Amino acid sequence: MSHFDSSTKPQPGVITCKAAVAWGPGEAMVIEEVEVSPPQPMEIRIKVVYTSLCRSDVTAWLSQAHTSIYPRIFGHEASGIVESVGQGVTEFAEGDHVLTLFTGECMRCKHCISGKSNICQVLGLEHKGVMHSDQKTRFFVKGKPVYHYCAVSSFSEYTVVHAGCAVKVSPLAPLDKICILSCGAAAGLGAAWKVANVSEGSKVAIFGLGTVGLSVAQGAKLRGASQIIGVDTNPHKRDIAKDFGVTDFLNPNDSDEPIHQVIKRMTDGGADFSFECIGDTEMVTTALQSCCDGWGLTVTLGVPKTKPEISGHFRFFLMGRKLTGSLFGGWKPKSEIPSLVDMYMNKEIQIDELITHNLPFEDINKAFDLMIQGKCLRCVIHMPPK
Amino acid sequence: MSHFDSSTKPQPGVITCKAAVAWGPGEAMVIEEVEVSPPQPMEIRIKVVYTSLCRSDVTAWLSQAHTSIYPRIFGHEASGIVESVGQGVTEFAEGDHVLTLFTGECMRCKHCISGKSNICQVLGLEHKGVMHSDQKTRFFVKGKPVYHYCAVSSFSEYTVVHAGCAVKVSPLAPLDKICILSCGAAAGLGAAWKVANVSEGSKVAIFGLGTVGLSVAQGAKLRGASQIIGVDTNPHKRDIAKDFGVTDFLNPNDSDEPIHQVIKRMTDGGADFSFECIGDTEMVTTALQSCCDGWGLTVTLGVPKTKPEISGHFRFFLMGRKLTGSLFGGWKPKSEIPSLVDMYMNKEIQIDELITHNLPFEDINKAFDLMIQGKCLRCVIHMPPK
Repeated sequence: MSHFDSSTKPQPGVITCKAAVAWGPGEAMVIEEVEVSPPQPMEIRIKVVYTSLCRSDVTAWLSQAHTSIYPRIFGHEASGIVESVGQGVTEFAEGDHVLTLFTGECMRCKHCISGKSNICQVLGLEHKGVMHSDQKTRFFVKGKPVYHYCAVSSFSEYTVVHAGCAVKVSPLAPLDKICILSCGAAAGLGAAWKVANVSEGSKVAIFGLGTVGLSVAQGAKLRGASQIIGVDTNPHKRDIAKDFGVTDFLNPNDSDEPIHQVIKRMTDGGADFSFECIGDTEMVTTALQSCCDGWGLTVTLGVPKTKPEISGHFRFFLMGRKLTGSLFGGWKPKSEIPSLVDMYMNKEIQIDELITHNLPFEDINKAFDLMIQGKCLRCVIHMPPK
Repeated sequence: MSHFDSSTKPQPGVITCKAAVAWGPGEAMVIEEVEVSPPQPMEIRIKVVYTSLCRSDVTAWLSQAHTSIYPRIFGHEASGIVESVGQGVTEFAEGDHVLTLFTGECMRCKHCISGKSNICQVLGLEHKGVMHSDQKTRFFVKGKPVYHYCAVSSFSEYTVVHAGCAVKVSPLAPLDKICILSCGAAAGLGAAWKVANVSEGSKVAIFGLGTVGLSVAQGAKLRGASQIIGVDTNPHKRDIAKDFGVTDFLNPNDSDEPIHQVIKRMTDGGADFSFECIGDTEMVTTALQSCCDGWGLTVTLGVPKTKPEISGHFRFFLMGRKLTGSLFGGWKPKSEIPSLVDMYMNKEIQIDELITHNLPFEDINKAFDLMIQGKCLRCVIHMPPK
């Protein structure tokens, strides 16, 4: 359907549906009836089909830093189907299969046209709980506005996102799986491929073997890394780590020696690449210590829950080590994520094994429990069919 | 002269000559009569002709961290003529013009053959005040060993260095000028060209406009940077900064606003490249703050006198900024420094203006005073002709 047809159709109205509303930080979600506004100009309204829980939803929900942004609907890793489009939207039509994007791509700002950055200056990470365009919400509960999360808020049967914050994907791709390419799995693969550009035969150390860390491992393996050291305090990660390419599993609790010294010894002087996938700035320092002089690159992917300052001895840098970060794996989301979906369809990347749990929408609080208890990788939440 | 000739010559003996000996940290140099051992296998003995004073000589001399490495001969930025060669040396012959190298190139270690690093694992920065090969000294004063500095110790009429810690240069090049390519000027040019790879039209911020910072500016200018912001608290640097390509001179003392905010405003969001050329880890943080998201690169060149830990907010990295360091500008010293000498001879780079003072050897302490008082860029010390 082209956008010219939309003028002949009735304008979309408010939708009333179920959403998981958090009324305060750390408070269990309540399934509420919410009103979802029609998409505004350059926005689309999506019927969410599957949404998975990412660690950063949990971190944001537990944070005491934004207590004023409640009630709020979390969720930013999702697949769905376009229900209606706002004025000016030509790229999407009703029925299109999409992934949501927690960091968008406007295609026009300095960063988007740079070819050097995926950090859109217009549709980048949204922190205030509102839509980028007008700083307002599209949700209401009992007449009160409900704040968004990352301008996605996928823990709702319907949500509204900017057209730059969604990407069309093949209708043949299984939405219950590819939803995790909307954040975690893509973030890890991109950190290895696009940000670090892991080279054949290289030695890699990965701190934290959740969905992101395991995806870094997969990315490194597919690039032909010769040694992939995975570090996690959870001994149950050993087997799945192997499945994703980890050649050496290290549990810091099993060693009296500082873990960076163990890694330096195992790698004859330090890893070529190290990745921090936990969200702990102390661990970024450890990752930096675990690298080799000369060209060792540390990539930080996590969002720390405490202490936001990363520190490292000047000598590491003077001797040629580098530190950088990776937001969404460096992917330009609209331009590049469809190719990841294609790779999954062609069985060139594995993501199914990252989905350890499936839960119906009404059990969404259980997904939070599983994540907090470290019992899941990705838990996919199935929205009610309608 | 080939190395075969050396067997027909008398073996070199001990040389007695003048050297500037520091007897303790911060204590004025004393011109002493020292004995210089003959070069050992794979070493050469050099008649130092010119040696300039670098800030790191002063920093090391003032440091209370290595009080046991005294008496000591400082100096690591020098030009000279080969006086004799040790066993196995085929690359040098008596009479060759050379620059000394405070970080050498063995051509064989993992780093040297990597093509990715100039940090030789065998002949890298020497911290113990001895020669790399046997951990002993080649100087004696009144029968006591005299420690080296960076395995160069050029504040002596004669010195012994490893053959990997010197590079042959054109005998036509003026030794009184090119000595500063043995450290400071090359360090700055390389940071801009090799480490940061400054691109045409880019915006650059440089913290500290000494010899190194001005050389970064020159490097950036020759790469076609469109804006080169130079930051220094010394207002007298304004004019020379302009000569070296600085388009905007900032004195932080003239502004109530934090300097990184001034730079962000002047550059519409932050510099593409920032360089810390002071040796102050707080200033590295400022340099990082002055960069743009997405691709901003901060390069630290200095050796801090206090607080060795560099810190930066995780968000800078997550948003795509990078931090790295530059030791000797990333130059592979033996392979690449001769080309810089050639560029100087062809007037493609300017270094003469960096030499603000010339002093005879006996006045070496005045050079230290000038550096400490911030009154000089490079002071070239003229060794006595013989």
